[in-house]
Amino acid sequence: MNLQRTQKTILACMLLLALLCALSSPQLLSQPSVVKPQRRLLDSATIVQRYGTIARDILARAGKDSLAYTRLQYLCDTFGHRLSGSESLERAIDWMLAELKKDGFENVRGETTLVPRWVRGAESCELLEPRRTPLAMLGLGGSIATPPEGITAPVLVVGSLDELKARAAEARGKIVLFNVPFTSYRATVRYRSDGAIKAAEVGAVASVIRSVGPYSMRTPHTGSMRYADSIAKIPHAALANEDADMLARMQARGERLVMRLSMSAKQLPDTLSRNVIAELRGREKPEELVVMGGHVDSWDVGSGAMDDAGGCLATWQALLILKELNLRPRRTIRLVFWTNEENGLRGGEDYARRHGSEPHVLAFESDGGVFKPEGFGFTGSADEFNMYRAAASLLAPIGATAMRVGGGGADISPLIPFGVPQMNLEVDGSKYFWYHHTQADMPDKLNPRELNDCAAAIAVMMYVAADAP
Amino acid sequence: MNLQRTQKTILACMLLLALLCALSSPQLLSQPSVVKPQRRLLDSATIVQRYGTIARDILARAGKDSLAYTRLQYLCDTFGHRLSGSESLERAIDWMLAELKKDGFENVRGETTLVPRWVRGAESCELLEPRRTPLAMLGLGGSIATPPEGITAPVLVVGSLDELKARAAEARGKIVLFNVPFTSYRATVRYRSDGAIKAAEVGAVASVIRSVGPYSMRTPHTGSMRYADSIAKIPHAALANEDADMLARMQARGERLVMRLSMSAKQLPDTLSRNVIAELRGREKPEELVVMGGHVDSWDVGSGAMDDAGGCLATWQALLILKELNLRPRRTIRLVFWTNEENGLRGGEDYARRHGSEPHVLAFESDGGVFKPEGFGFTGSADEFNMYRAAASLLAPIGATAMRVGGGGADISPLIPFGVPQMNLEVDGSKYFWYHHTQADMPDKLNPRELNDCAAAIAVMMYVAADAP
Repeated sequence: MNLQRTQKTILACMLLLALLCALSSPQLLSQPSVVKPQRRLLDSATIVQRYGTIARDILARAGKDSLAYTRLQYLCDTFGHRLSGSESLERAIDWMLAELKKDGFENVRGETTLVPRWVRGAESCELLEPRRTPLAMLGLGGSIATPPEGITAPVLVVGSLDELKARAAEARGKIVLFNVPFTSYRATVRYRSDGAIKAAEVGAVASVIRSVGPYSMRTPHTGSMRYADSIAKIPHAALANEDADMLARMQARGERLVMRLSMSAKQLPDTLSRNVIAELRGREKPEELVVMGGHVDSWDVGSGAMDDAGGCLATWQALLILKELNLRPRRTIRLVFWTNEENGLRGGEDYARRHGSEPHVLAFESDGGVFKPEGFGFTGSADEFNMYRAAASLLAPIGATAMRVGGGGADISPLIPFGVPQMNLEVDGSKYFWYHHTQADMPDKLNPRELNDCAAAIAVMMYVAADAP
Repeated sequence: MNLQRTQKTILACMLLLALLCALSSPQLLSQPSVVKPQRRLLDSATIVQRYGTIARDILARAGKDSLAYTRLQYLCDTFGHRLSGSESLERAIDWMLAELKKDGFENVRGETTLVPRWVRGAESCELLEPRRTPLAMLGLGGSIATPPEGITAPVLVVGSLDELKARAAEARGKIVLFNVPFTSYRATVRYRSDGAIKAAEVGAVASVIRSVGPYSMRTPHTGSMRYADSIAKIPHAALANEDADMLARMQARGERLVMRLSMSAKQLPDTLSRNVIAELRGREKPEELVVMGGHVDSWDVGSGAMDDAGGCLATWQALLILKELNLRPRRTIRLVFWTNEENGLRGGEDYARRHGSEPHVLAFESDGGVFKPEGFGFTGSADEFNMYRAAASLLAPIGATAMRVGGGGADISPLIPFGVPQMNLEVDGSKYFWYHHTQADMPDKLNPRELNDCAAAIAVMMYVAADAP
């Protein structure tokens, strides 16, 4: 890591953070003024000296059982997916609250919030010409339904928004397929988010995308999408990469493509869900907080094992390790499993609305899979960055020492306007987008050893964050 | 390679071959006596000296275009799967025959043979208890249907045949799930082949298996299965590995499992299909033959790109390269795309019945995927092995020099009783059983460069086999 550049980047991040506070958060103005925790940061040598033994104890304890993985399997098997508004999500939350109480944590509670309720219903996609064959598809979350008989229309395949603009005259009355190969999530997810708007603008009757993922075993990926008020709403779905490839080849051969898309998705009235909260109260300054967690909801495919039962179980286990080792830090560590990350972020927003003005020294989220941990990403001051880098150096035995500039997570982003430093777990994410939002996101994609290592890494880092004077 | 051991193994293989001729093939007795081609085998140095330049020319030519891959994509996209008895198989065969004629090969023809016709129909599998959720399943080829309302029964999960025997009393009236993790194809495929027999023997009403594959993205694998005349026929299907894992965990937790299996599969009367044949006639001894090919049929999932459009296209392209380079060997090279490999082997048996008594110096099949080629497997005499090893050494530029003792393929196995040496292409098969018999077997799983390398390797080896005096 280039240090000089790193420090400049941190400075840039902090300026951005300040700007965001000032510009992008009108609700901040109506908040009570934020209580800023004061702390004298420890230098690297002191961190290593003060927390070295504790880190060794945590690492040793983390590998002693596979409770976290066993609980993850139970959660996924017993309740299945946890889409916002589903009964399975609320039953999973009930179980988590009961288990957290059994673990003996403090202030275990669910904080209710209204969440959207989108229901997929029956859906299918069939190619009719040049050859009749079913296509592997998943409707995108938030999409409207087709008429009951489906939408049957010719298909126009485009490789980019620019190509759609260039061929806008051909799109009217057609189903547009955005066949954009995965480069990065950021570069391709916009076709999922905005594809229906862009296709409707040029008169398309429905839009489908190549799934947002680098590898496919005929595995379509769902995810959220949006409409614009002024633009006609059209159904929006994802095809497996193999199917998108095939349609693109057929069009390149000059063949006429006709597809039938059938979706019966519904947006029902908002319904109640809960953020799951449990605490390990601080021994000296319990009103000061480190908040950490994952999101409890998932998409309605697979069982959301990686996204994000893993993040919940890793942070849960981290807190349990601290409790079992009687490591009660100076400040309170608050565990939160946010609801509705996938299609609304209502849990994260509700948490910030209720608690944003409490003195948070750090907000941490694990939502990138709990594969082999590599370290942390952090957005905050350079002094804090250096302190956390020293804490990460204690994770050398599991190779999780990297500190990257820039960190955060969707559910903790509403705390940015409150000036709360943001951190996330960094892992070997090479297969994350293989499984993300697919039927394949099941417990076998994770393993107990890596989950324990993640829990250990989080426990060490959170303890230092909550304890350093 | 341990040479002394290799030679002993070859000797053992030959003895086995002779024994098989004598014992296992009653039809041999009614065949006209086989004409044995006589040949003086060349030593290694002569092979290298005589065919070195030719091999270089073939390797250079093979990389010049991507015709083989373009044809594979066209075949898979245009006709889709090619299950025996389907219209899509026969349309694919029509197209292949027309293209082979356009290529200018000799004696291009389809040789008709009756094949079985199994049709999958609608099917589903749903877990009802402890939680209602659809399971990812594929019926196994040859299975009977369930009643129209499906079969609803408790589930007994076993990890082996031994466990089923030990728990036989618990199996009556249940659906047995054989949850046997993939170790090798040979070790696990028997649960696919014989699972319905074994489960019915202990009174089960249906049987399902964990899919035969080491890796899953919620991808069940189909494949052939059988019944025994004296044992009740029960429906037989495969679950995705993730689903089998989940059921096993639920049973281990002491939960009661109830499943509904619905299948509407039908075995229709046999119907006509064809072996696809084309030749490059020999310049000196056209009646002597090297036969090579792949199988034209596939399972009815995905588009059979890897299994085995790839084997057909690689051998086809190999013959085209020889033709375009005006490399006409002494003997005839006969290209065959056998039909019905997957669920009957009628094409391979028909070929042997019609042509087994012709003088074949070698039978070659590519049916292990056309990934990066590594060399060849061979069953025959030690002298021939050494000659072919010298030929493989010419493939050093593409790294396909390995010669392994023991080779063959399902479609050429009926030529064993005729004493025909057997060879197959060896490739990097590390992902072969990821895609085998799944919806994921689509053209993207192969790539043009590796397909061309396979074609080059096959062209060099077949040329030496057909030309060496």
